[in-house]
Amino acid sequence: MLNTTIVDQEIVLDHGTGARLSRELVEFTAELLGDVYVGEMEDSAIVRETGEALAITTDSFVVDPPFFGNGDIGRVAVCGTVNDLAVLGAEPRYLTLGVILETGLPVARYAAVLRSVRDAAREAGVVIVAGDTKVVRPGEADQIYLNTTGIGVFRRPPLRMAHVTAGDGILLTGPIGNHTVHLLSVREGLGFERDVLSDCAPLNGLVASLLRSPFGHAVHSIRDVTRGGLTAVLHEYARATGLAPHLVEEALPIERPVRMACDMLGINPMNTANEGCLCLFVEQSAADGVLDVLRRHPYGRQAAIVGTVVEADDREVRVTRPDGRVDAIDELHGAELPRLC
Amino acid sequence: MLNTTIVDQEIVLDHGTGARLSRELVEFTAELLGDVYVGEMEDSAIVRETGEALAITTDSFVVDPPFFGNGDIGRVAVCGTVNDLAVLGAEPRYLTLGVILETGLPVARYAAVLRSVRDAAREAGVVIVAGDTKVVRPGEADQIYLNTTGIGVFRRPPLRMAHVTAGDGILLTGPIGNHTVHLLSVREGLGFERDVLSDCAPLNGLVASLLRSPFGHAVHSIRDVTRGGLTAVLHEYARATGLAPHLVEEALPIERPVRMACDMLGINPMNTANEGCLCLFVEQSAADGVLDVLRRHPYGRQAAIVGTVVEADDREVRVTRPDGRVDAIDELHGAELPRLC
Repeated sequence: MLNTTIVDQEIVLDHGTGARLSRELVEFTAELLGDVYVGEMEDSAIVRETGEALAITTDSFVVDPPFFGNGDIGRVAVCGTVNDLAVLGAEPRYLTLGVILETGLPVARYAAVLRSVRDAAREAGVVIVAGDTKVVRPGEADQIYLNTTGIGVFRRPPLRMAHVTAGDGILLTGPIGNHTVHLLSVREGLGFERDVLSDCAPLNGLVASLLRSPFGHAVHSIRDVTRGGLTAVLHEYARATGLAPHLVEEALPIERPVRMACDMLGINPMNTANEGCLCLFVEQSAADGVLDVLRRHPYGRQAAIVGTVVEADDREVRVTRPDGRVDAIDELHGAELPRLC
Repeated sequence: MLNTTIVDQEIVLDHGTGARLSRELVEFTAELLGDVYVGEMEDSAIVRETGEALAITTDSFVVDPPFFGNGDIGRVAVCGTVNDLAVLGAEPRYLTLGVILETGLPVARYAAVLRSVRDAAREAGVVIVAGDTKVVRPGEADQIYLNTTGIGVFRRPPLRMAHVTAGDGILLTGPIGNHTVHLLSVREGLGFERDVLSDCAPLNGLVASLLRSPFGHAVHSIRDVTRGGLTAVLHEYARATGLAPHLVEEALPIERPVRMACDMLGINPMNTANEGCLCLFVEQSAADGVLDVLRRHPYGRQAAIVGTVVEADDREVRVTRPDGRVDAIDELHGAELPRLC
């Protein structure tokens, strides 16, 4: 049955923010595609064509602003796609690059994006195998949009949401909020953009070093904490597993200037989009070992254990506040934030 | 050395039309990506990951208008991507679907696009393995843009431009001009849109039946005749092979109302974008046999032999006019046409 509350409406910005309306649009899309859609609602799809399994993921990038202090839409696109492959335990190999350019964009800015794509691809060890460029009239795009589709190979069994069990520790590989605060600050001229940089980074190396370590077997599932933030990720796991993620608020890695900026802006860091932060679900007994491995990697120095998965019939996401109070964290209806990825 | 005549400029619409400026932008892109770009400038890239070779292609679709008489941007996207895989001799298998929606688009129109994607995917026998939806503000997209990336497998050696040799016959699988005339007519209200429909179709079945036929071995290379039209395709072959395609103008399959519309609009059908027409290069001795096979398929009924590849130092594209005169066909600088794919 089609979601008729959606079909009579118009697309609104909140359909793109990674919260509930976003999820409903994705579910609507999958429903209408019917039997030709065989995706699994993980960060990447898995197909088995020739013995070895392949991971496939796609993402369009409409970052606003497309150019920021320590990166641009090109770096965001490559890192986002590489990370979507890596979190399933796949080794990213091939990217495609689709570009939509707005008439009037200085070619030099396009060149800057391409250099960022090149540098991020080199860092991640992936190659670009196919590309496409389109041009639209002024007012038909916001400078530049990218689509990157990624293909990876599995040298080990895929990590899956379904592997998460009660008792698992929940870890973050780095602080949350930086990318969102940085971009908002650049966009609105808030003055935070020098102290708070985007965390945008390819994390396949970090994941590979963890999976190769003695604690690799204890990693059950990993998720990229992007649109919708940690809140969206944990609600996704609650729905998929029937379990209840429980966070400790004080354990969340949030840099001081990020916290200050979020307070000022009235933003909850748990809802912010990141481009270089993963959420891991690992066997409780191995959580400290995993943490050590993560912290030895340049992109994992601020990793932290932030919670536990518990049995609970209500599939709620909960957080223990500093004063000991326990609150349920609701899924957001739309964004409290504009698009940043 | 970077193309400095480009880098100091701004993006113009003609950078997206499939003619010379378009090609220069693609070359500029490949140059800036440097060693991380391993594409081959065919319609699909070929990667060999796990024994069997894979074909990979990507395309963004910014069709204007996105909804037309006998199709929409959803059908165009699936068919375009399937055809880019099929022309290399690959069997299309998996698609990804990236969607950019403009705020305010009626969800019912999005639903119509998804149904077209579903139906075209069913017809082509491909599945959609991963998707992504993004939403932008009003005036930051033209209703809806799609990106489809396709993955195919090779059950036979890939067809390559480099296989074309002097003496090869040049064939078209169907008439040219229909898609362009139909869309222009819908857009500008010219009144041709009932008599002239888009040719948009998935042609992997047609290609497969040809390659399986006794004449399959005689097929050297195939190209999708889209942006830039037959003119762009033949110039691409001239550059890649060092040979000179030579057409016979009277042999070009062009439906009467298409010819009339093109005359009225001052458009050369050879420059029009198509979405269901392939250009084949086949051994001269097998050209008639290939033609018979093509004409037995529903999407090849109007196939025609339209020329020959000849040796010529100048790599020119030439056409013999009805009066016997031979003209060189120059590569277009930009488009004489707006974007239709």
